[in-house]
Amino acid sequence: MPTAALLVIGNEILSGKVVDTNSPFLATELRSLGVDLERILTIPDEIDLIAREVRAMSETYDYVFTSGGIGPTHDDLTMDAIAKAFDRDLELNQSMVERMERQQGTPANESQRKMAMIPSGCQVIDAGDLWFPVVIVENVHIFPGIPKLLQKKFQSIRDRFRGVPFQLLRIYVKRRESDIADHLNDLLVEFPELMLGSYPKIEERDFRVLLTLESRDADYLSRAQQSLLARLDDDAIFKIE
Amino acid sequence: MPTAALLVIGNEILSGKVVDTNSPFLATELRSLGVDLERILTIPDEIDLIAREVRAMSETYDYVFTSGGIGPTHDDLTMDAIAKAFDRDLELNQSMVERMERQQGTPANESQRKMAMIPSGCQVIDAGDLWFPVVIVENVHIFPGIPKLLQKKFQSIRDRFRGVPFQLLRIYVKRRESDIADHLNDLLVEFPELMLGSYPKIEERDFRVLLTLESRDADYLSRAQQSLLARLDDDAIFKIE
Repeated sequence: MPTAALLVIGNEILSGKVVDTNSPFLATELRSLGVDLERILTIPDEIDLIAREVRAMSETYDYVFTSGGIGPTHDDLTMDAIAKAFDRDLELNQSMVERMERQQGTPANESQRKMAMIPSGCQVIDAGDLWFPVVIVENVHIFPGIPKLLQKKFQSIRDRFRGVPFQLLRIYVKRRESDIADHLNDLLVEFPELMLGSYPKIEERDFRVLLTLESRDADYLSRAQQSLLARLDDDAIFKIE
Repeated sequence: MPTAALLVIGNEILSGKVVDTNSPFLATELRSLGVDLERILTIPDEIDLIAREVRAMSETYDYVFTSGGIGPTHDDLTMDAIAKAFDRDLELNQSMVERMERQQGTPANESQRKMAMIPSGCQVIDAGDLWFPVVIVENVHIFPGIPKLLQKKFQSIRDRFRGVPFQLLRIYVKRRESDIADHLNDLLVEFPELMLGSYPKIEERDFRVLLTLESRDADYLSRAQQSLLARLDDDAIFKIE
């Protein structure tokens, strides 16, 4: 199955000023596509650090996504860093400049031209009505930090990323996690390929643990469900969905 | 200033089933204490991977915090991994067992005893009325994934982490980011130590960019503010707070 990593670039997240909503969005999207997101890393706006991490991720995962650092200001270093990671030059993308000028009706200023400096030899893919396209260097997909724009851009290329999606089953259990842990371990001996999550909920009234059972194989999942239910007493289940 | 890194352990976050609220909480807390959070990394529940990342973080940052993976089930591998990272054994902490048994009035079962297996030679610090203490190995502080418990535990030891806090000023600007970028760059030439953030807001009516100015030196911050305001026309400012 395809694997992915996400690099979040932004002092504003590390300093707690902004809550990162891009990671949960991409995690959910990639899951529904069947792509395995294996790493989310948040780092400051530092060019050498970004270059090093992008390079390492690009070598390890099938798809890399970056978020943030592509605006016109001093702390927008992502394009420079990605160019550096792959030993490329930055060059002015004339079609981005033209599109921007058409949209605003006036010539691009210096800061706007800076935003149109992208690594040489990259792929440039139009994203709907946005003047700024999705820029792809090797397997690295460069997204903005602004959630609405990131979402719009991801949607415009999402069909490129497709694995076999997981089937998910949620079972809400009225027992304490420590009272069912042995059953869960036994279940995994019988169904070693099952992805089993166990999440205690201390503030719910109707159940105490949420179990998630996942598999890419619907039949395997169904058999695992039956096996788990046989291990728990009927009264232990609050609901299944 | 002290630095910190945060390791989030959990398939549930990578798969989009759970939104990570622990990272924003700790980012905000550390910021208010004056500790520089420099890295947030989310990885799956895999013992060797956790051990490797914990070890690397421990060597690089003053404080490391982990979140998740300390419950009684199959996917709770954090204690094993941290023991491995520092070449220690896991041993049963008798006082944790006693406290748990006192709280529930019955003997601890196997799963509960598993939760009381912690790395040898670690620090164990009581966290209020919780039977599970904060466990610290070297500079690694081990927290649970459940947000309420993590918060309670962090609060119980937060006074250990104290740097010089930042002073923060927010300036809401009615201009486009690309129209003020040059002024921002000039400001940073004059005030190279200023931490300046620039965040375009596409869905606000009253302003288009939020600027954040930060410094640990209140006087420096005040002078930077004056210099910035002198560069922008009066009408460009929506508000300052």
